[in-house]
Amino acid sequence: MLSYSVIGTGAVGGYYGGRLAESGRPVRFLARGDARLLAERGLTVHSPLGDFAIPKPEVFGDPALLPASDVLVVSLKTTANSSLRDILAPSVRPGTAILVLQNGLGMEEEVASWFPEALVVGGMCFICAQKRESCVVHHLDYGSVTLAPLDSRASGVLESIRADFEASRVPVTVSSSLGEARWRKLLWNIPYNGLSVVLGRDTRELMDGTASRRMVRLLMEEVVAGARALGFGLADGDVDRMLDFTDRMTAYEPSMKLDADAGRPMEIEYMYRRPLAAARAAGARLGAIELLAESLAWIEESRGSAQSSSSR
Amino acid sequence: MLSYSVIGTGAVGGYYGGRLAESGRPVRFLARGDARLLAERGLTVHSPLGDFAIPKPEVFGDPALLPASDVLVVSLKTTANSSLRDILAPSVRPGTAILVLQNGLGMEEEVASWFPEALVVGGMCFICAQKRESCVVHHLDYGSVTLAPLDSRASGVLESIRADFEASRVPVTVSSSLGEARWRKLLWNIPYNGLSVVLGRDTRELMDGTASRRMVRLLMEEVVAGARALGFGLADGDVDRMLDFTDRMTAYEPSMKLDADAGRPMEIEYMYRRPLAAARAAGARLGAIELLAESLAWIEESRGSAQSSSSR
Repeated sequence: MLSYSVIGTGAVGGYYGGRLAESGRPVRFLARGDARLLAERGLTVHSPLGDFAIPKPEVFGDPALLPASDVLVVSLKTTANSSLRDILAPSVRPGTAILVLQNGLGMEEEVASWFPEALVVGGMCFICAQKRESCVVHHLDYGSVTLAPLDSRASGVLESIRADFEASRVPVTVSSSLGEARWRKLLWNIPYNGLSVVLGRDTRELMDGTASRRMVRLLMEEVVAGARALGFGLADGDVDRMLDFTDRMTAYEPSMKLDADAGRPMEIEYMYRRPLAAARAAGARLGAIELLAESLAWIEESRGSAQSSSSR
Repeated sequence: MLSYSVIGTGAVGGYYGGRLAESGRPVRFLARGDARLLAERGLTVHSPLGDFAIPKPEVFGDPALLPASDVLVVSLKTTANSSLRDILAPSVRPGTAILVLQNGLGMEEEVASWFPEALVVGGMCFICAQKRESCVVHHLDYGSVTLAPLDSRASGVLESIRADFEASRVPVTVSSSLGEARWRKLLWNIPYNGLSVVLGRDTRELMDGTASRRMVRLLMEEVVAGARALGFGLADGDVDRMLDFTDRMTAYEPSMKLDADAGRPMEIEYMYRRPLAAARAAGARLGAIELLAESLAWIEESRGSAQSSSSR
């Protein structure tokens, strides 16, 4: 059994950290704006698997005060990654595991470049969850995690993390290729996050519209093309499977739509620009994804690029 | 000197038909909603080259009543092309020339398939002109026309049309490749028409925004890629030249934005879908253009696909 520091107690950090704490793992929660409130009120998770609460969570507002943990769970949005190195630095020791539960591409490589002594694991969360108010996470659907090591040094700790997650009601799949697993996650994130913002619709409405459904498919086909250019084993059949998956899913507003509606910065850099750059370096130009990324940038530019806080 | 029937007296038909009539050519105007008003009030053209009027134009409301003319000038929007064959049929005789002044791709081939006995010429209008009220055309900027024959049979009549246009203060360029000339026109139409609708901005605002300017460039690069896949001689330098051209141009709302704002159908089929299909058949998938086309389709779908009249 490992100990965990959850870096960023939003919907993702709150849900998975809450699950680990509920099953008895030592879990410290780093929070920003609502650290005091969280310590006082505790963490509540509403879930179709049954609601639960962590009445007395270990909450910290200052990363320098976090006690040593075996695993640092990065669950900030990537829009905060310009401060991530400073946030993690006090907690990283030789052999510390860093589990990156963010959306996008290239975060693990960046974390490893800052902390070569750490063991870096990527985590792709297939979950519908939202935190619309302090101290309360709404788990709506799904909840599994795919774990993939950045390199073979992280394989051992990955298995221990897997055991803890599975003992905490979190289904785990292990992938040997972090890159492929990241692109498989992008297959969902790239179309639904961006289109939900640009068209102002939830996933159900995107799937029900004739043109918007074609847009989803086109974007997915480009994700597959990008992944294949990089040598990953995605195929056209994956597009149909992901469309079916979303057809069966509850109507959902992706995190980027919540960010946009709240005037927060959007995860354009890691979710769009880095995959585009990686694909382009491999010879694939993904025009539809590029146009969507620029549309999102245009929206941020038009609203005056409010550099609001990215704390959750 | 040839005689002309202008099929569709909107901004384009009114401007070029007006120029030809002003210089003394016999010109008949086919109009729809405003035929009676046009006959009563005449046609007025405001132009930086000097305003002029055709006080007593020959106006017809019924295509079956048009007298025989040497040249049928097709200046309807392509959204009306489902009725174009029936509109033209009474006027086409062996050797009649059909000058297609529409935007998009594939209109000339379609017209020729309906009337194999006609001589078909494509005309690419580089003009900023608008008709916001009956009987009045506002010529804002530019005004030249590139003429290209669909096939060599039309080369002779093309030279006569050129002479008439040049005698009517319309600068003419002749291209030997209709396909290349159409794609060169698409280089402007594809980015500016669609983006002006999707982003709700005029050309000046599109050029001044950081992200929107990148979107314009991306779309132009895909037009060049599509044209090159088809063997036409467009090059990357053409993108820079077209950006420069638009930088120097007056702020302008492209025709598709006026259509969208007025709730009229948009020229998605000929300006986007047909170029996309042609490029794809040549092995080039143009993702950004495809996403833009679907965005426009989504806007039409969202407003209930009002099949309003396309008469201008």
